[in-house]
Amino acid sequence: MSLIPKSHPRAKSLFIREKLVKGFENGLVAKEGLLAQGRGEAFDYLLGEKTSRLAKNAIRAAAAQLLLAERPVISVNGNIAALCPKEIVKLSKQIKAKLEVNLFYANKTRKQAIIKMLKKSGAKEVLGSNPKTSTKLDGIDSARRIVDKNGIFAADVVVVPLEDGDRTMALRNAGKIVITFDLNPLSRTSHTANITIVDNVTRGIDLLIEECKKLSKRNKDSLQKIIYNFDNKKNLAENVIQIKNNLTRRARIA
Amino acid sequence: MSLIPKSHPRAKSLFIREKLVKGFENGLVAKEGLLAQGRGEAFDYLLGEKTSRLAKNAIRAAAAQLLLAERPVISVNGNIAALCPKEIVKLSKQIKAKLEVNLFYANKTRKQAIIKMLKKSGAKEVLGSNPKTSTKLDGIDSARRIVDKNGIFAADVVVVPLEDGDRTMALRNAGKIVITFDLNPLSRTSHTANITIVDNVTRGIDLLIEECKKLSKRNKDSLQKIIYNFDNKKNLAENVIQIKNNLTRRARIA
Repeated sequence: MSLIPKSHPRAKSLFIREKLVKGFENGLVAKEGLLAQGRGEAFDYLLGEKTSRLAKNAIRAAAAQLLLAERPVISVNGNIAALCPKEIVKLSKQIKAKLEVNLFYANKTRKQAIIKMLKKSGAKEVLGSNPKTSTKLDGIDSARRIVDKNGIFAADVVVVPLEDGDRTMALRNAGKIVITFDLNPLSRTSHTANITIVDNVTRGIDLLIEECKKLSKRNKDSLQKIIYNFDNKKNLAENVIQIKNNLTRRARIA
Repeated sequence: MSLIPKSHPRAKSLFIREKLVKGFENGLVAKEGLLAQGRGEAFDYLLGEKTSRLAKNAIRAAAAQLLLAERPVISVNGNIAALCPKEIVKLSKQIKAKLEVNLFYANKTRKQAIIKMLKKSGAKEVLGSNPKTSTKLDGIDSARRIVDKNGIFAADVVVVPLEDGDRTMALRNAGKIVITFDLNPLSRTSHTANITIVDNVTRGIDLLIEECKKLSKRNKDSLQKIIYNFDNKKNLAENVIQIKNNLTRRARIA
């Protein structure tokens, strides 16, 4: 039973917090992942805790990019597996992307728990645990460079929701097109990725699946045009302006 | 051994994170406390990760208020016990304040671990675990209303670093003067407290101890004047402006 009083004005946010805590208890989430989620909560609060028009534009560009991809891969970490495993599997099926478990804080047991969760959520194959097909990315230190030959290593487009800046950079240096979810529009990840969706992944993922479905009948030119018209740096700058406007508004009512 | 690569640009923040994680492993910190710390990290990042002039003003007012207090009490939770136990004990000695353990997520074992940590850090007495002297605060739901008759219940001034909005409100309703550390200048706690120090407690606590020492020879009138000249709402509003300015600056260099 939840200890959170329903009368608490931040009950909704505390319930999501409980979901992560449950994921932690089930061995999916690292302790550091709980802290990382807290950071996300703060930015979500500053963004108004809703999916903005800006996020929707980024989602549309991401969907177009995924539909144009030849070898798309979705990188899954513990927080994603705890927050939206079914949705991630659904997205992978919608765009025929491979799933690969890739952890910042590497840990075999946790990796297995994540794979199990994804399979329970409908995934047929999850890469990232076979030493025979593992290889290394350049430009990133040892513990976090390992990827699957048939997954991220061979991918042209990689979705890395809730990723670290170092790894995002390593993926870009390896020539990948990177799509990320990041609530901090100032982070290195946000600025290194090709397409940054500044939204809570638990809200944005369903919209991304929808958009992939919606755009799936478009031809290549039409999809290319959507990507061409999307400016990630501009989108991020506008997200910063949005936070500033929210701060002004909140400061007024506080 | 730390798994955090020294080359990581956010290594410092990740090391503090490790401190909390260690506190969690030692039974001091709740899982939810890890998330709460993450939220703090994000606001600290937005505030520039340094003690501002505004925070110093609040620290000065807090010191004056503590020196004028007749029955000051410092409320300690798991995160505080993990981050700066020695400093909290030092502050309590400097201002002759009682220490009371008071948890958002109540848990007997954790309470005992916190008391043990405070005693190890030099505390002679720690209130909050004796059922014979426990009583209840009004206006807050059951699990969190319990306080010590000889501690918070009888206090005129309460320091509640990293506190929840509900409880801050209950303390104000009970007629207490509340001093808090909160990195979010928009939070209910920040706006409910009498004096809000918008700073990372691990940085600000030493300054607060120093200021208490510095002001200890002042007379009552002089201390009253410091408090009279401090405007908490104005201080919070200026902190919001500071975040906005930092956002502008960061967006420019991103």
